[in-house]
Amino acid sequence: MTDRHDLAELQQRLVDFAARRRWEPFHTPKNLAAALSVEAAELLEIFQWLTPEQSAAVMSGEGDGGGGGASAARVLDEVADVLAYLLQFCAVLDIDVLAALSAKIDRNELRFPVPELVPEQVPKPAPAESGGQKPADPSDE
Amino acid sequence: MTDRHDLAELQQRLVDFAARRRWEPFHTPKNLAAALSVEAAELLEIFQWLTPEQSAAVMSGEGDGGGGGASAARVLDEVADVLAYLLQFCAVLDIDVLAALSAKIDRNELRFPVPELVPEQVPKPAPAESGGQKPADPSDE
Amino acid sequence: MTDRHDLAELQQRLVDFAARRRWEPFHTPKNLAAALSVEAAELLEIFQWLTPEQSAAVMSGEGDGGGGGASAARVLDEVADVLAYLLQFCAVLDIDVLAALSAKIDRNELRFPVPELVPEQVPKPAPAESGGQKPADPSDE
Amino acid sequence: MTDRHDLAELQQRLVDFAARRRWEPFHTPKNLAAALSVEAAELLEIFQWLTPEQSAAVMSGEGDGGGGGASAARVLDEVADVLAYLLQFCAVLDIDVLAALSAKIDRNELRFPVPELVPEQVPKPAPAESGGQKPADPSDE
Repeated sequence: MTDRHDLAELQQRLVDFAARRRWEPFHTPKNLAAALSVEAAELLEIFQWLTPEQSAAVMSGEGDGGGGGASAARVLDEVADVLAYLLQFCAVLDIDVLAALSAKIDRNELRFPVPELVPEQVPKPAPAESGGQKPADPSDE
Repeated sequence: MTDRHDLAELQQRLVDFAARRRWEPFHTPKNLAAALSVEAAELLEIFQWLTPEQSAAVMSGEGDGGGGGASAARVLDEVADVLAYLLQFCAVLDIDVLAALSAKIDRNELRFPVPELVPEQVPKPAPAESGGQKPADPSDE
Repeated sequence: MTDRHDLAELQQRLVDFAARRRWEPFHTPKNLAAALSVEAAELLEIFQWLTPEQSAAVMSGEGDGGGGGASAARVLDEVADVLAYLLQFCAVLDIDVLAALSAKIDRNELRFPVPELVPEQVPKPAPAESGGQKPADPSDE
Repeated sequence: MTDRHDLAELQQRLVDFAARRRWEPFHTPKNLAAALSVEAAELLEIFQWLTPEQSAAVMSGEGDGGGGGASAARVLDEVADVLAYLLQFCAVLDIDVLAALSAKIDRNELRFPVPELVPEQVPKPAPAESGGQKPADPSDE
């Protein structure tokens, strides 16, 4: 990740951007949470009909039926929108999103211990291939 | 935002976390986009029946009907989940999310020029009060 | 609701529509659930910056800043898309959606008993005005 | 679909259910659109880590890692919630959802003509197998 683009600096640019355009009255936490959810769905929309394999190739332009990178540009755009609304949401509520994530990873490391491996253990087949489900998920709280 | 929690470092922790638990087969871009969207909806769920005013008080514990901070903890948790899946999505596709956001803000500054103010101009009433809609939005592309 | 448009008949039209265009391979339950979620977010997008009052006026064309009914047409369109994907999802999994809803309402009637009113009881102020939260919700399971 | 459960009748039950519990103040179109979106995401959550094949087996109890039908019950529950909020949304805005869907299918039949087949034509491989994308979609407006 490029050092030039500090997260806190980008958050401040977003806050200033909205203030100069007098958009604060619209930026209630409720509205920003809705907007974040809408942008996340727009990112999902790019993938909704793709196979898992096509979805993995989306940035190379091979996943968009010869679109020549159209999907890649859309992905970058939606990813930026999701982060933009997340940072604005956190700014309005004075939430330190990096501290929140760090604390969550700490909790998840306790909740989901790494299965111990005996040295000779042959790695199990990947769950998706063996028909199993992902055993648990950090966000399934 | 605390300096201790560098975004790139947190992203690496998430990548390592998934690798140690052999979750990579599940972490296709499509699945991570779905999970991101689900977490954003869980954040929205906290606000779905709140008035704009209640939504603004959600971190103080006044917005949750005397829940004593239960909503605040949920908000922190969902915010962390949204960022976690966004960073994992970007890691899998080798996307620099901060560069993507920086480029998007640059584009939006051209697209949404700041309305010029004559010095004596009385600020217009906030759009939400005057019955108007937010004139345009950076993510409406 | 007009009698001409029977739900089962519309569901059959959707199934035939997809079959004639050879879209079945795309219509896995997972993909249809993603598409349903995307369409629901597109409906939400229309309302994301509106006040509660503006949202109530959206079909009269007053909620869209003089859009002359543009929002109303969008609402009808998105509502149709949500139902279309819900019916296709249920067709693929052989789910009787009306029976599912009927059973759910039955369960909710047991779960959320109607508060008894003494005859002289003055109706309480509406919860949104009294600062309270919706006490419980049929879908909060 | 069982005749006993008429859509209009279920919609009326939902309206009465909310009225008896004095929930109307919460049921603005904006809030109901948010709730609909949240429920659609909860349906998607069931499928987020499943392969396409596992997602097709979700009602048989084989898709939930031996959960013995737990996923099937969740699917029925979420499907009912999605329809419930869609019907309540339409009731509040006086929208005839079946007419909206019928009109949308009419438009889509003009927009997406069925590709003509010469009698001897060998059916093309399903798009998902041939690496192509779904050529177009009724909801992509």
